[in-house]
Amino acid sequence: MKLLYPEFEGFKLNAELMKGFAVTLHAYDPKKQLPDDLLDAEILVTWTNSSDNLKHAASNMKNLKWIQSCAAGPNDVLNAGFDASKIVVCTGSGLHDHTVAEHSLALLLCAARRLDEMKECQLQGEWPGHLGGPQPDRPKGKFTSLRGANVTIWGFGNIAKNLTPMLTTLGATMRGIARSSGVRNGVEVYGDDKLDDILGQTDALVMILPGSDSTKNVLNDLRLRLLPKHAWVVNVGRGTSIDEEALANALEKGDIGGAALDVFVTEPLPESSRLWKTPNTIISPHAAGGRPQDAEQLIVKNLRRFLAGQDLDNRI
Amino acid sequence: MKLLYPEFEGFKLNAELMKGFAVTLHAYDPKKQLPDDLLDAEILVTWTNSSDNLKHAASNMKNLKWIQSCAAGPNDVLNAGFDASKIVVCTGSGLHDHTVAEHSLALLLCAARRLDEMKECQLQGEWPGHLGGPQPDRPKGKFTSLRGANVTIWGFGNIAKNLTPMLTTLGATMRGIARSSGVRNGVEVYGDDKLDDILGQTDALVMILPGSDSTKNVLNDLRLRLLPKHAWVVNVGRGTSIDEEALANALEKGDIGGAALDVFVTEPLPESSRLWKTPNTIISPHAAGGRPQDAEQLIVKNLRRFLAGQDLDNRI
Repeated sequence: MKLLYPEFEGFKLNAELMKGFAVTLHAYDPKKQLPDDLLDAEILVTWTNSSDNLKHAASNMKNLKWIQSCAAGPNDVLNAGFDASKIVVCTGSGLHDHTVAEHSLALLLCAARRLDEMKECQLQGEWPGHLGGPQPDRPKGKFTSLRGANVTIWGFGNIAKNLTPMLTTLGATMRGIARSSGVRNGVEVYGDDKLDDILGQTDALVMILPGSDSTKNVLNDLRLRLLPKHAWVVNVGRGTSIDEEALANALEKGDIGGAALDVFVTEPLPESSRLWKTPNTIISPHAAGGRPQDAEQLIVKNLRRFLAGQDLDNRI
Repeated sequence: MKLLYPEFEGFKLNAELMKGFAVTLHAYDPKKQLPDDLLDAEILVTWTNSSDNLKHAASNMKNLKWIQSCAAGPNDVLNAGFDASKIVVCTGSGLHDHTVAEHSLALLLCAARRLDEMKECQLQGEWPGHLGGPQPDRPKGKFTSLRGANVTIWGFGNIAKNLTPMLTTLGATMRGIARSSGVRNGVEVYGDDKLDDILGQTDALVMILPGSDSTKNVLNDLRLRLLPKHAWVVNVGRGTSIDEEALANALEKGDIGGAALDVFVTEPLPESSRLWKTPNTIISPHAAGGRPQDAEQLIVKNLRRFLAGQDLDNRI
C-alpha cells in the first residue's frame, strides 16, 4: 500500500514520524502533476496542490481509498472531483488552530495598543506623542487594552478554544456565539438568538466563521450598528461573512472603532476596495493560517485507524 | 491628617476606595502649583506632577511625612528635592506591570507576524502576498511565531513575572537574565555571567532594565553580534540600556532581525535619529506604561501601614 505525501521548498514533513506501518511512503511535489508510477496509490495527503493537479489525480487514481488534506476545509479536494461517497475525505482541521489564534491575538493587540497608527506616524518621521506618555487607563468608550475588555468570538470552534486561554491570561472577559449554546472551555457560548444583545456589549468582535451560504454577510449594516462606536472587528474566518460595503461605511462614519481583516470577499483585495483607505483599518493578507503544524501526528493517527478499519478523524 | 491625591482630565482615582481612615482626602491638580490651604498635608500622592510643582511642594510642605508616587521609579520626586532620609518615599512599582507586559507582547507579536510590514504595504495600496497564503511553519533562522521561540527577558522583575504567563500560554520557551540567578515564577533566570551564552540562543530579547549607570549601553556592538541574525530586540525598559548607534548599524547590516523600541536615549526620538529609517524597526512612543492600574489598592495598603507605624511597600 502506498501513501503519497507532499514535499516542496518550505514544506517538509518528517517521514520518520510516519513510519512503522505496512505502507510505503512516497514524497511528491504538489506543484506538479503526479507521476504515473504513483497513480496507483491508495492514500493521498494534500497541501497547496493546484486545482489542475488535483483534478488529474481525481481522474487517474483508480485505487485511491483515502485523501487526507492539510487544509482546514475540504473545498479544494471536493472541487477537484474526488467523491466523498466513494473515498474517505479528511480535512486538516486542527492543524491551523494555534497559528490562527496567535494571529488573531496579534491583530487584537495591534488594534488595542495602536501599533498600526504608530507605524503610520513612523513612516512620516512623526513621533506619535498622543499615544505615549501618561494616558487614561482603559477609558470608557475606547478599546485600549484586552484587560477587562469584552471580547466576543463569533464562530466558537477549535480556533476559539485555542484563543481563549491567550485572551483570559491577558484579562479579557470572553463570550462566544455559535449555532449551539452552552459552556465550552469555560466560556459561555450563546446561540444566534442572543447575538444582537451580545454585540451591544462587545469591545472586540473576533469572527472565525467558515464560508458557507448561512454565514454570508452575517455582519451586515444592521448588526454593525449594534456594536458600540469604539468596538473593533477582527476577521480571521472568511471574507464572505462581512458585508464589506457596510463595513467601509461604518469605518468612514466612525460607527465602529476599527477593523483588522485577514480575509476578504476577493483576495488579493482589489485595488478598487474602499477598505485600503478607510480609517482604523488593518489589512492582513490571509496570513493567519497557511502553515499546518504537526501534520504528521494527524496523518499517523488516521493511518492507524484506516488500517484497522476504524473511523477517521476530520472525516467530512 | 490630610492626604492629597492627584486628579485631572483622564486620571481619576476612586475616592470611595480610599475612605475609612482617620484621614481627610483632598483631590488636587498636579498640573498646577499646590494651593496654600493644602500645603500643611502630611501625605502626598503624585502622578505626572510637573517638576516646578514638585519643587514648590518639596520646599513648602513642612508637615509632609510620606510621599507616594504612582510612577514606576522615584526620579521625579527625588530630583524635586524631597529628602528620602527625612520623609518616606514610595514608588508606584507594580502599578504598570500588566500594561507594560501587554505592550511588550503586542510588540513581540507585531514583529513575529510582520504586522508592521503589512501596514507599510497597505499604505502604498499593496497586497503583501509574500506574507500570506501557504508559508513555511517556523522555518529555522526566522522569528515568525512565539510558539517554540526562545524568548529571553533581560531584567527579570515584576513586569517579567506578568509577561511570563502570557508568553508561556503562547508556547514560548522562556529564560531570564538578572543580577541574581535562580528559578522565578517557573522561569530559569541566569546571572550576567551567562549573558553571552544565552544571547546566542535567543529568538527574541525583551529588555526591561531600569535606567542606571550600571545598565548604560549594556546592549552594545559586541553583544548585538552575539544575537542570531534573525533575533528581534524589544525594549520597554529604558532607552539608555541600548547603544543606539550600534543598534542602527546592526539593523542596517541585517545583523539582527529587527527592533521594536518603546524607549529611547532621547524622547521624543530626535529627527536626526537613524532609527526612524532603519529596516525592521518599530517605533513606539513610550506607550507601554503611563497608565497606573489599581493605584487605590496600593495607597490604601500603604496608608493602613503608615497609620499603624509599619513598613510601607515600595519604599526606596
